[in-house]
This record gives sequence, structure tokens and C-alpha cells, in this order.
Amino acid sequence: MAILVVGSVAFDSIETPHGKRAKILGGAATHFALAASYFTDVRVIAVVGEDFLPEHEAVFAARKIDARGIERAPGLTFHWTGAYAGTLNEAQTLGTDLNVFERFEPKIPEAYLDTEYLFLANIDPVLQARVRSHMPKVRMVCGDTMNYWIKDHAANLAVVLRELDVLLINDAEARMLSGEQNSVRAADAVLAMGPKSLVVKHGEYGATAFFCNRSFFGMESVPRPFRAPALPLAEVVDPTGAGDSFAGGFYGYLASQPELTPAVFRKAMFYGGVMGSFAVERFGTERLQGVTREEIDARFELFREISHLDSAV
Amino acid sequence: MAILVVGSVAFDSIETPHGKRAKILGGAATHFALAASYFTDVRVIAVVGEDFLPEHEAVFAARKIDARGIERAPGLTFHWTGAYAGTLNEAQTLGTDLNVFERFEPKIPEAYLDTEYLFLANIDPVLQARVRSHMPKVRMVCGDTMNYWIKDHAANLAVVLRELDVLLINDAEARMLSGEQNSVRAADAVLAMGPKSLVVKHGEYGATAFFCNRSFFGMESVPRPFRAPALPLAEVVDPTGAGDSFAGGFYGYLASQPELTPAVFRKAMFYGGVMGSFAVERFGTERLQGVTREEIDARFELFREISHLDSAV
Repeated sequence: MAILVVGSVAFDSIETPHGKRAKILGGAATHFALAASYFTDVRVIAVVGEDFLPEHEAVFAARKIDARGIERAPGLTFHWTGAYAGTLNEAQTLGTDLNVFERFEPKIPEAYLDTEYLFLANIDPVLQARVRSHMPKVRMVCGDTMNYWIKDHAANLAVVLRELDVLLINDAEARMLSGEQNSVRAADAVLAMGPKSLVVKHGEYGATAFFCNRSFFGMESVPRPFRAPALPLAEVVDPTGAGDSFAGGFYGYLASQPELTPAVFRKAMFYGGVMGSFAVERFGTERLQGVTREEIDARFELFREISHLDSAV
Repeated sequence: MAILVVGSVAFDSIETPHGKRAKILGGAATHFALAASYFTDVRVIAVVGEDFLPEHEAVFAARKIDARGIERAPGLTFHWTGAYAGTLNEAQTLGTDLNVFERFEPKIPEAYLDTEYLFLANIDPVLQARVRSHMPKVRMVCGDTMNYWIKDHAANLAVVLRELDVLLINDAEARMLSGEQNSVRAADAVLAMGPKSLVVKHGEYGATAFFCNRSFFGMESVPRPFRAPALPLAEVVDPTGAGDSFAGGFYGYLASQPELTPAVFRKAMFYGGVMGSFAVERFGTERLQGVTREEIDARFELFREISHLDSAV
């Protein structure tokens, strides 16, 4: 089934120990859409400026991503400038030029209204909630957020959290949202806010899924937490978009399956890690533009091999 | 086969968000020996003072640990004082009274000379090397170290590293020892110093094993890294000794097996996590004194369940 993602399509200027790139294609919706496109059809709602050129459209077209919901507005595209050092676990934001994104009013194309899988990438929770409320056929909602919305827009975020089947955030965000230092208590507190499940991303250590004390898979018992590994990589060229690529692989796989079961959710966690591991191998979206389904499946097997007791050598 | 551990038997004064304990039994060799004792016979070389009482001896005796190598010296037992806050990932050392440990000269009882599995807990690498050189029958050596020896005793540590089949350290120690921030490059650099394999502990995120580019399992190819999970725990009462308990579970299981294979090594990583997860549930050695083999095996299955794709719900 098709996924609709609403979020940012942006230009990123990035410096890492491996080099520097100016104004390359980025944004949460872009990374998500590319990663998910290897599993299912993807539709995008975003806004870009006059500097968004046919070469950038071509990146979406090449992956058969439906970009009719990417609105053109007068002015420049959202531009993020950041740098990474040390373990590359955290970006230092050097500049955020919102540009056309500042007045982003998501418009839902008629053709998108039958979408059943919605991904609310990291944007103002007011917009997340508005998009959700205008999608009558949606049967699963997955979303992301960040420290800025958690700290200063808690009431608006609370509305969104109640709508989510899956919330995908990182360790620091889970701690901030819950006020709990312990990861299990943090997860319990976040799940009490509404999401039916929570996927906490640990960067180079993988991710953990927690499930809420209500029916999610149509089962009586609540599944235990599940831990998916990340791949130890000798070279992380650019971590930008790793989390969004994780989300794209995760949700793309989920939406491609006929039924949501605990086994499907677990595999989705692995596919999330797989797409995140590809994303960081090159700057920006470069790697996710060119990966093949065969490479994805081979890496999935590698994830299994490095984490399962019964693996072949 | 029996394991000989040389290291500290100590008293710990500990404060965590869950409470405070004064002068409870601790020390790397103690935690290691208790954890390993559920898998195989364990012998201990250490030194204690006049404050080491029959009640402390009884802890070793109850687990049938051979404590003939624990020497009594005039003075007080090594005493560590520390506190944990926040995520409990790192101890703040408030005091280190070496006492009798300051002049520790490991003496190897005659009855220990046939030991084939040696564990060099975190002590002066000069002593680690000396014990190793006096154990003629040893066929596997596993060891630990810490920032103090890495920084200020590098040349002595280098001698020990060349003798190790397995080096067990944490992320920060791997980065410090290698000078590399990236975990894979750090592992490569550490393995180039001599150990045939490296187990890097990630605290609440589990552990990763890396293997060196030489024969270890008698195979032609080098095994890929392996990632073992840790159990998400809602309550970490006292993290002291978690790493030593991991080492005890890991090495105890290894030594109990007739042959060292990649599959055995993987299971050993899981048993390490299992014993670490028990250790932190109570203060000091309390939990590891009283755990049962049935509980250990049930938790091993839990570790499998939370990390394997094909788990039952």
C-alpha cells in the first residue's frame, strides 16, 4: 500500500570529517521517501522554493516517488547547515534558513486522499495533526518529532501523539519527552501519552521497539520489547538523514506487507537499520538514490548474521 | 574446565538513586567469580585484609568457588567509594583506598597450576603479565583493563595485549586505547595490538565482538562482528560489577564448552549479557549470590526473544 509522507524537502550544507557539501538535496521527507520507495509506492507533501530545479525533481522521479504534493512557492527552499565531529553521533546545527518552509501549509492533492499509511515527519505538530485529520482513509499513522517541539510545543504535540500507531524518536528525545532517564520507564511514560508503539533509535547501537498495553497486533498479550542491531561501519561519511532513512525502511516494509504482525514489525526494524546503514555511506541522498533491492536484501541477511545465535559463520 | 581469575576482592561503598550501601563485598574478581561459578569451576587469586570476615568467605564458599588463592595480609581490604546519577551509565569515583592491594603480589597456589582458562581482571598489567607467565598449562587468556592503565602504563599493557585471546573493554576504553572515534576502526586498531578477539561492552546497548585477521576458531575466514543485546531494565539498582559479571558469564560459558566455535562465542556473549542484567538488579553481589541456573536459562531465552526475528511473541 502507498505511504504518504509530509515533511521537509530541503537543501543541506554539511561538513563531516569526510568532507564538505553545499546545498545538496536533503530534508526528512526526502530521505524517508527514498528509503521507503524500495518497498512500496510513496507520495510526498512538502514545499520548495524557486531554487528547486529539474535535477532535484529527477531524484524523486527516478525512484517513481509521486511528487505531485511538492508545492512550489516563491522564494528559496528550506536550507539547513550543520557539522559533525568526533563519533558523528550528533549534528551541530550552524544555520536554519526556513525560507518557504516558514509558511508551509500542507495541501493534500485529491489523488492522495485514499492513502492508508501516513508518515508525519518532523514538522510543527499543528501541521501534523491537520494533515492527519484530512486523511479519511488512513489506517496507520507513524510519526517523528524533535527536541524543539517537545520543549516548546508540548500541548500541540500531545494531540499528535494520541493519533500515532508508531512514534519514532531517538534516546535523547525519549528522555526529554518523558522526563525519565531510564529507557524502559521513559518508554512507558511516552506510551502513556498515546502512541501504540514506540521505536527508540540508538544511532550506532540500533533501535528498540516498545509496545503499549493495549491491542496493537490484535493480540491479547503485549509483545516484549524488541532490539534490532545497527551495522558496525568503518566509515560513516554523513549521518544526515540516517533516522529518516531508518523510518523509511521501517515503514516502507510495514506498508508493503498484507498484515501487521509482531514478526512483520521485527523485520521492519531490521529494514530500518539496513536503510539507515546505507544512507550514511555517502553524503546526502547519494547512496539511497542508487542502492538496489538485491543490496538491501543482502544487507538484511548481514543484519541477521551479526545478531542471531544460529547464524552461519 | 576451571577458570582462574586474578583481580580485586574489595569492599565497595556505593550510592545510587536507589539507595546507599557501605563497605559491601565487591571487586572485579568477586563479581567475575560469582557470575562464572554458574557455568564452571572457578579459582581466585586476590589479596584481602583483616576486615575480610568469615561472612565474606562464605559468599565464595556458597558458590563452591576455590578461594585458596585469596591471600590474607595485615591491614585493610581495598575499598572503593563511588556514586551513580542520571542514566547510571558511569560511576563517579569518590575514593580509592588501595590498602593491602597496593602491595599485591599474586601468589599462585600449587593446586591452581593446571588451570587452562585464565582471566586477568583489571589490575596492573605488570601483575597480569606475571601471572600469565607462571601458568604453564593455560590455553586461553581473557582480560580486562581500564583508562588508568591505558593512559599511564601503555608499554606494560602492550605486553599483556599480545597474550590475550579475548580483550573485554567498554566503548570509552576502546576509543582511548586506539585513539579512534569510529568503533570499527577502534576495534581494528586494538586487534592490531595483539588480542585475537575484542568484546566491546556498550552498557545498556549490549556488546559487540570483533575478531582479528588471524586464525582464532581454526577457520580460514575471519568471522564477522557479532552484536549481543542487553535487556531493557526498568530498574537498575546498582551498576557496579555489571562489566565483570558480563565477563564472568561470557568466560564461564566458554570454559564450560568442549570446543571454541563461533556459535559458542555468540552464546557466550548472550550469557555475558544475562549475568550483567542480573548483577544490576540489586546492590553489590546480592543478586548473583542467589540466582538459579533455571533463572539464567530463562533469561537467556528472553535475550533470544528480544533480538531474534523468528521469536515467538
